[in-house]
Formats: sequence, C-alpha cells, structure tokens
Amino acid sequence: MKLILIGFGVVGQGFAEILRDKAVELKRKHGFAAAIIGVVTASKGALYRSDGLDIPALLEAAHGGCFSHYPDQPGLRRGWSADEMIAAGEADALVEVSPTNLETAQPALDICKLALDAGMHLVLANKGPVALDHANLRAQARAKGVQMRYEATVMAGTPTMHLAEDALAGCEILSARGILNGTTNYILTQMESGMSYEGALKQAQELGYAETDPTGDVEGWDAAGKVLILANALFGASLTMADLDVSGITHISAADIAEARAAGCRYKLIASATAEGGMVKAARLPLADPLASVGGSTNAITMKTDLLGDITLIGAGAGKLETGGAILADLLAIQRAAGPS
Amino acid sequence: MKLILIGFGVVGQGFAEILRDKAVELKRKHGFAAAIIGVVTASKGALYRSDGLDIPALLEAAHGGCFSHYPDQPGLRRGWSADEMIAAGEADALVEVSPTNLETAQPALDICKLALDAGMHLVLANKGPVALDHANLRAQARAKGVQMRYEATVMAGTPTMHLAEDALAGCEILSARGILNGTTNYILTQMESGMSYEGALKQAQELGYAETDPTGDVEGWDAAGKVLILANALFGASLTMADLDVSGITHISAADIAEARAAGCRYKLIASATAEGGMVKAARLPLADPLASVGGSTNAITMKTDLLGDITLIGAGAGKLETGGAILADLLAIQRAAGPS
Repeated sequence: MKLILIGFGVVGQGFAEILRDKAVELKRKHGFAAAIIGVVTASKGALYRSDGLDIPALLEAAHGGCFSHYPDQPGLRRGWSADEMIAAGEADALVEVSPTNLETAQPALDICKLALDAGMHLVLANKGPVALDHANLRAQARAKGVQMRYEATVMAGTPTMHLAEDALAGCEILSARGILNGTTNYILTQMESGMSYEGALKQAQELGYAETDPTGDVEGWDAAGKVLILANALFGASLTMADLDVSGITHISAADIAEARAAGCRYKLIASATAEGGMVKAARLPLADPLASVGGSTNAITMKTDLLGDITLIGAGAGKLETGGAILADLLAIQRAAGPS
Repeated sequence: MKLILIGFGVVGQGFAEILRDKAVELKRKHGFAAAIIGVVTASKGALYRSDGLDIPALLEAAHGGCFSHYPDQPGLRRGWSADEMIAAGEADALVEVSPTNLETAQPALDICKLALDAGMHLVLANKGPVALDHANLRAQARAKGVQMRYEATVMAGTPTMHLAEDALAGCEILSARGILNGTTNYILTQMESGMSYEGALKQAQELGYAETDPTGDVEGWDAAGKVLILANALFGASLTMADLDVSGITHISAADIAEARAAGCRYKLIASATAEGGMVKAARLPLADPLASVGGSTNAITMKTDLLGDITLIGAGAGKLETGGAILADLLAIQRAAGPS
C-alpha cells in the first residue's frame, strides 16, 4: 500500500515508527506492507519518491527539523505540493495527520477532496474535515468506491470508531457520551486531590497535555469537535458547531469539586451526541457511573445500544504511538475490506 | 444466509427474535438476510425446511415447550438429527447455542467438526468447543476456508472478540484480565452493601443470575472456561483446565470485604490470561483500577497492548438479546469478510 502523509508531527512520526518497527510482524500476521511515498509538511518541506522513502532517514531528518537533511536518492523529488503528489496518481491512500483547524478545516479539507477524487482511500487523524464536512466527504468516498476512516480523531487509537462501525454493526446506537478530552480530565482529577485550577493547568502544560493557549481544551472546543464527528458518523447527522451547546471547566471551582465529592459525586467534562444533537458540559456524575472513575488524562465513552445495553470503552486519548496506532488500524481495516489479495 | 441452530434456549430464541424484529433494518443497512432452515434441540424436538422456517411460529412452538406445536408446511421435516441436517449440505453456517459442557464439550464438539468439514461457517455461544479444542477447530476452519467466530462466549454481546481480533489487529495484546462472571460480581457487590454471602447468592438465584447449583459460577469454573477461550484465541496457547490456577469466591467473608473497603480496595473475581497461562482468583483491587468500579452483574475486561496501552471494555455479560446480538454480530462479520456480494 503506497501512502502520502500530509503532516509529519508527533502523530505522523509515531505512525512511521510503527511501520519501521512492525514491518515484519505486519507482513506475517496480516500480509500488510506499506510504503510512504510522499510527505508534505508546513515547516519541514516535502519529499516524494515513487519507490518509497526510507523511513529511518525520514525520521532522522524530521528530528533535525528539516527534510533538507534527507539524503539524495534516485527518483527523489523535493518540494512537491500535496496537489502534485496526488496528481502523480501513484498512492493508494492519503493519510491526513496535519494540525486540526476546527474553523475552516483548511487546507486539509481541499486536499482530502482531491485525494478522494483521485480514487485514493483517506485516513485522518486531523479532526477538521470529519467534524466540519463529514457528509460530503462520505458521499464522495462512496461515489469513488474508496474508504474514509478516522479512528485517530476520537480517543486516539482506543478503537471507538471500530467499535461503533464494525463491532456494534448489528445494533442501533442510541446515544454516545464520554470523556473525550484528556487535558480537562487531568485538571479535574488533580483538583479532586486538592490542587487549584491554575496549579493543575500549569502541571498539565508542563506534562505536554495542554498547550500554551489552553482555550481549545478548557473551553470545551476540542471535545466539541469530537461530538460533531460522533454525531455525524454514528447518527448521520449534519450538525455544525453552532448546533452544539458547549461549555468547559473554567467555571468549576475547588469549592464545587469539594461539594460534589461530599455528595458522592465527581465532576467530569461530558461530551455527548444523539441523533438530535450534542453538547459539551461539566456534569456531576455519581460514582457508580463507569465514567466517574476514569481519572487522569484517560478518555472513555459509553454507547447506549438497543440490543446490548450500555457498552463502555476506556483508554488513552492521546500519545505518539497511541495515535499512530490508530492510523495503522484504519489501514488494516481498509485492506480487510478490500478482501484477500 | 441459511442457518442451522443447535439448541433453542434463551440465546437461540433471543437471536431468532432479533432476526424477526430487525429483518428490514439488516437488509437495508447491511444487505444481510438470514433464514433459519434447521433447529435441533435436546428437549423440544427438531425442525428442518430448506426454504426457511417461520420464525414467529418457531418462537411460539418453543414457548409452548415442544416443536410438535409448529404447524405443517410444504417441505417441512421433523425429527432430523444435526448430522442429517449438515449432510443435506444446504446451510451456509451452523450456530451452536446449546448448553456448555466444560468437561468434554460434547455433543457440540462433534457437530461443530462435521459442520466445518461440510464447509459451513461456525458461530458459537457454547463455550465448550472453543475452550477445549480451539486449535483443532481453527485449523479445520482454515483448511476449509470458512470462519469460526464466538463473540457470545465471553461477555455475551459486549464485543470482546471483535475488539481483540479486528479493532486491535495492529497491536500486540500482552495480557487480558477481567470480570468475566456476572453472578459472582453481583454477589460481591451485594456483600459490599452489607449482605451476607448466603443472602446475596439467594438473591442472585431469585433474579436468575445463578443456577440452583451455583458451583460453576462461585468456584470460578465458568470464568475459567472464558480464560481458556481468551488464552487460546488471543495468544495461540493450547491450555487446558489443568493448566489454570482456579479459585472462586466461596472463601470470601463479610469481614474480608469490610477490611478491603477500609483499605480503599474492593474484592473482584479476576480472570486473567497471557501467552504463558491463566488464572481465576479473587483479588483486592485499588479503586483507581477501572475494573474496581464495575458493579452488579456487569462484566469488564482490560487488554494490555504494546501500542495503545490499556484498553478496557465494560458491558453486559449475559442476557437474551445481549447474547443473541453477539450471534448476529458474528454473522455480519462473516458476511463482511466474504466481501460485497
């Protein structure tokens, strides 16, 4: 399987490391072999080679901060745009791992549409296109007979989408609600242990969970993007941010936390989606709720189904290998669906 | 898809109800249509009809306790054995939902082998054959190019096997540990609330969780059967009951529970499997362990993976529709793997 990667940050590098380290195992267990033939980045440059790039050299160049450190090779092209790589028509799948833009989904959205139009499968860790234009992308993928998968966009590699779309295929999913942002869950957990909001936020930033500008996390927007993805993917909704009721955790005080605790409850930032809509809101959960005991930066989701009752999945919501592993899982699912070769 | 059912108790009837109630939805969403062409039971008789049995009439006859209540129809055969139905060569899959025998796996095991040999896919809710002869059945299925699936055998329809085999396909699963017996978890949860072991067991029997002879549950044998299935399916082990260290909850007193509680812990009957072996043993878990907060008859499993860290799945471990839904999920997966028709 020949791949073009758009973006080569933490997630792209994690995926490349997995391909490097698991090549033999993947070939043996799944008959799966992948070559990265193109990489486009905003800051490090771009590389393309029909016969495949050398993954260790690619990772080393990325660690050096610039693809100019990548050695010359026969057939190597430097500086191509995503459009040029797609137009070359050699890739089987485009892997979108560039940073998420929840306002316009660009420039990723246009690139995704070009790739689908060229008959390439599409795998995303970038939430933007799936959150903002799911229906059009899905229709385009179906028309072209290719697959679009995006396991990494919700709970990293914890297999939320595989669960909903494959494992629960015979059920009707009635609702989904979960803890979909690790940063805010980490802050709330630390506040339970007596830390102030400011202290917990600072610690989350030091650990790399929260960004310097934490607004996207603490105001609920990151979780809201995931609500849109769930609503559109699981319920065929066509919601936009304007349809969601979104609030974060900035109004939760140490006193609120203590009061909830005294009442046998715990505050969690709950993201929920149904066929009718979605919301992100801090809520006091009774301790018997499986989501109440999910601590630290861990994520979790409960899907209510007609046949199986409540199914809860708990796992990592971020991380280099955890998210890179989601890309691999999607590519394996694409290969499975294509049938034995 | 033409099906033969071996057994028609709670699980078989639950599956038949789902086929009856979801026929239109399954056809529309998955292009899936199934006919039950044969049913063999130990106590109600047997029915076979190439063009499919009438599901409402089948359920009504079963509720009456005997298939002699099923109306005559053109082409209907009464009293055929499983061997005769398989020999007719018309079924695409055999669905084994007869009661589990963890000592010999018979008579189900011989029937499963006959069906695989005849080129039929195999779906089981019966734990016996998968727990005791997994390696041979898998080899036979592979040689015949058919699938063997058994989602229902561990945690009913909660998609444990789909998770391990499909959703986590790119990972290496290092270990699995969980609460795999609902009866004992219900008893332990009630004891936490101050009930005696005897009182909690009596209540579990009244609610239909525990059988009149509760030995299989409370001594850990039911969970041990599931450990064998996990060990053999996830790790390619060839373990037998003799390889497992198995104990139950009968030695846990109210004082033990109280002492654990005072130490911030909770007793759970933990079933675990690795490539090296498996065990069933009551253990004191710290409350931060996701398994500690799983109460009542609910089941849960944590799989430790190389790429994604710990993944925990929580859901029902028994129930008519919950287990019948697992059969449906397996049949849908078989259809998916066979590719678009």
